[in-house]
Amino acid sequence: MTTPTAIRRMPDSTPSQPRRLAAIDLGSNSFHLLVANHIGGQLQVVAKQGEKVQLAAGLEEDGYLNDAAMSRALDCLTRFYPFIADIPSTGFRVVGTNALRDAKNSQTFIERAETVLGHPIEIISGREEARLIYLGAAHALADVHGRRLIVDIGGGSTEFIIGEQFEPLALESLHMGCVAYTQRFFANGEISEKRFRKAQLAATSELAHIRRHYRELGWSDPVGSSGTIKAAAAVIAAHGDGPEGIITRQGLWALRGRILKQKQLNKLSMSGLKADRATVFPAGMAILCAIFDTFELDHMRYSDGALREGVLYDLAGRHTAEDSRLQTLEALRQRYRTDPRQADNVGETARTCLTQLASDWPFSDEQIEYLDWAAQLHEIGLAISHSQFHRHGAYLIANSDLPGFSRPEQQALAFLVRAHRRKFPTKELETVPAGFRPVLAKLARLLRLAVILNHSRPERAMTQLSIKAEGDRLDITLDRHLPELALIINDLEQEVEYQRAAGFTLDVRTT
Amino acid sequence: MTTPTAIRRMPDSTPSQPRRLAAIDLGSNSFHLLVANHIGGQLQVVAKQGEKVQLAAGLEEDGYLNDAAMSRALDCLTRFYPFIADIPSTGFRVVGTNALRDAKNSQTFIERAETVLGHPIEIISGREEARLIYLGAAHALADVHGRRLIVDIGGGSTEFIIGEQFEPLALESLHMGCVAYTQRFFANGEISEKRFRKAQLAATSELAHIRRHYRELGWSDPVGSSGTIKAAAAVIAAHGDGPEGIITRQGLWALRGRILKQKQLNKLSMSGLKADRATVFPAGMAILCAIFDTFELDHMRYSDGALREGVLYDLAGRHTAEDSRLQTLEALRQRYRTDPRQADNVGETARTCLTQLASDWPFSDEQIEYLDWAAQLHEIGLAISHSQFHRHGAYLIANSDLPGFSRPEQQALAFLVRAHRRKFPTKELETVPAGFRPVLAKLARLLRLAVILNHSRPERAMTQLSIKAEGDRLDITLDRHLPELALIINDLEQEVEYQRAAGFTLDVRTT
Repeated sequence: MTTPTAIRRMPDSTPSQPRRLAAIDLGSNSFHLLVANHIGGQLQVVAKQGEKVQLAAGLEEDGYLNDAAMSRALDCLTRFYPFIADIPSTGFRVVGTNALRDAKNSQTFIERAETVLGHPIEIISGREEARLIYLGAAHALADVHGRRLIVDIGGGSTEFIIGEQFEPLALESLHMGCVAYTQRFFANGEISEKRFRKAQLAATSELAHIRRHYRELGWSDPVGSSGTIKAAAAVIAAHGDGPEGIITRQGLWALRGRILKQKQLNKLSMSGLKADRATVFPAGMAILCAIFDTFELDHMRYSDGALREGVLYDLAGRHTAEDSRLQTLEALRQRYRTDPRQADNVGETARTCLTQLASDWPFSDEQIEYLDWAAQLHEIGLAISHSQFHRHGAYLIANSDLPGFSRPEQQALAFLVRAHRRKFPTKELETVPAGFRPVLAKLARLLRLAVILNHSRPERAMTQLSIKAEGDRLDITLDRHLPELALIINDLEQEVEYQRAAGFTLDVRTT
Repeated sequence: MTTPTAIRRMPDSTPSQPRRLAAIDLGSNSFHLLVANHIGGQLQVVAKQGEKVQLAAGLEEDGYLNDAAMSRALDCLTRFYPFIADIPSTGFRVVGTNALRDAKNSQTFIERAETVLGHPIEIISGREEARLIYLGAAHALADVHGRRLIVDIGGGSTEFIIGEQFEPLALESLHMGCVAYTQRFFANGEISEKRFRKAQLAATSELAHIRRHYRELGWSDPVGSSGTIKAAAAVIAAHGDGPEGIITRQGLWALRGRILKQKQLNKLSMSGLKADRATVFPAGMAILCAIFDTFELDHMRYSDGALREGVLYDLAGRHTAEDSRLQTLEALRQRYRTDPRQADNVGETARTCLTQLASDWPFSDEQIEYLDWAAQLHEIGLAISHSQFHRHGAYLIANSDLPGFSRPEQQALAFLVRAHRRKFPTKELETVPAGFRPVLAKLARLLRLAVILNHSRPERAMTQLSIKAEGDRLDITLDRHLPELALIINDLEQEVEYQRAAGFTLDVRTT
């Protein structure tokens, strides 16, 4: 696998300079803040905060997040804000997981939260969450050898990763979590063996999908990295049912027995268990019992280092050879067998335009990156069908698990690919967050021009052009001696019409 | 590439017995009927009919096929009907191409045409059209060696194929044709050099997409197989501008000059040109000139043997080792890396159900084949994302160019994959032609059961079941000693609810 020159970048900083990084993880059970200095490949924690917001408990049956949960969440972010106020935006990410993936009105919450934090919020897919959890855990366990199973029982989803060193071999996110299962199986607040069994059976059913594959891969070291698992280890140790920081099978079954002796969630109390964990603890233990049974575990040890640490390590690796997004792009191009020369040529023409427009239409580095990536991917839909291939490409980008990319990034890329030919998709543009529309529209117009200028798939990128912009108007001038000028002009005349229909002005001249 | 046992079938007939086959090709310019005996791998023509229906000329600007064109088409089919009245349905196919791909109301036409013919009509994709054209041409040219370029200028699309012997190496269908270009560039009936140039430039623009790839592949023998090319060769020969059946570059340019001397389409007349070809001839020649220029051809020879012959050879090859559909399924499974054991197990459980239901719910061989194929493909969407993978799989099947499959077949398969888990998609069922809905619903219900019964991805297919049906009601009985019964029952209880919500009854028992 080679990294294409078109999207290779230099590291932002040398390893000897510390870089301040921050992450907020909007989990379904807890929100976490982590601020750290990244130096010599390691994180030095500067600040750490966690609050049990229980966002998932505010998901009503109709799929909407209720006002109470939103208020709790926004209050928490208001308290987090002072910690991140000074962090440069390229060193800070806010990621949302299962509750925000599921909520029908998550966009409403996101807009309010973005106002509080002054920073974009990115929902990530379950598999991306799993990848980031593994990245965090792999750093925490860097001195341990062998194949690992990492389990993270969240509020709304549970991630399972098998990996060696820093490489994940299997990434899954299952739709089960301690908050969601509390609502589903312990809604009336009663604890009973029947309810516990039902919850455990439901978790076993989810696990059946991955059981065989995971057991075939195998592992030597099962590790749990979530608050639920930390709490289980603490309760087991407090009762003398097992060693510190280790959940043994025996200890877990003793714990199950202790839970089933109690009657009500809101009165659940046992030594080692924090009060704010109690209500979601039985559901979490039902899931953990299902995991022990399904994978025939003898023990699981608790390890710190989870999603938020992974987000920071991922941020630190961006624009280096470890940028997972480059590997993802390469994997997409391999699977869908794109023509690398054409992708590079379109990218080069687009960058020629960006350079000439540097003062008329200034873009951020991140925005320029979008255009690079879209150029690399614009033809992947051809693998499905020539007919409507821009739509197929957009579908693949919007819906695939793309390691390293968040959902808003995937949506932006999908829009650019959707928009690269035929009518300008003004309707689709409206599905993008409002603030990002003008930029995406400009990037899409440049991508379209780059595609047209390379229409006949030349050996080298078509860069003999002069382009300038004034407001929303673009003027492009071509040399009249250009090879295939008639073809290009024919396409550009059509493009003038397409852009006009979308409310844009494009002027084409030859000299 | 191995053929999975699950979908391997025995040939319907031995090669020594002649088999009566028939095809109707609903082209954008002409409708063609071909009836032949297939014996010893060859076709013996029994009947051949062709009518210039000019369906594409009836496509209004709003994308609707007008009543006049529909009447012409239905009248033609009424005349074709006596030729096919006695052909067994498994030996007869009716395929629609570009005009029907494009028309917004093609379903209306199809329903009327199906009433006239008493047989389903299948719209095929552009690439499938190209594949079938090549199959027909390859048989006609079986004694010629070397790499071939086959060009078929139709009324609405033009197909380009490069291949060796019976293997196509590149298949493309471009959106340009003699009827469509007549409407677009010669709408007012005048012939002028400017109009001719515009049409030629538009064709050159379409060809620019494939030029480089095709020229890199190369060929030694350019062949044209359409009525447009036959007519060009005839006019050139009639004027002594070239040898019989060969279009030379010089002859084509002479022909271009002769056309441009005339003023009006409806008065266009030259020796060798049939009157019913005249109006669409200039547009066809503009496309042909663009092809000669783009591919730098010196000559092209005309060869009989096109789409309809390809349809018959394809029909003859079904259920043999040459069935292109098996290769297509294999290619899909490779690209999307499905788990072959799970696919085979689901298929085997489904067939166990079909066998037990043979008298309660009888299905045709073709319908059973759908269920086999859907079992093979039901997990391909996992390659995109775990989340909603049934939707992704359905998208891929509905939108991909799948050699050997028609659009209705793809739609049926896509529906089954869409329906294989979660809520039963009653809305999507309504997009399938009404007559096919009850059968597809039954097949989908069986596929769902087969998936549930193999939920834990066992080594061997779960076939210890007893199933019967009465009307729309299904009763399934499982042995209470079955391994993992609790899991299966848990899933089946949910399935009873899903089926009830869709208006079906499922009863689950254990003994």
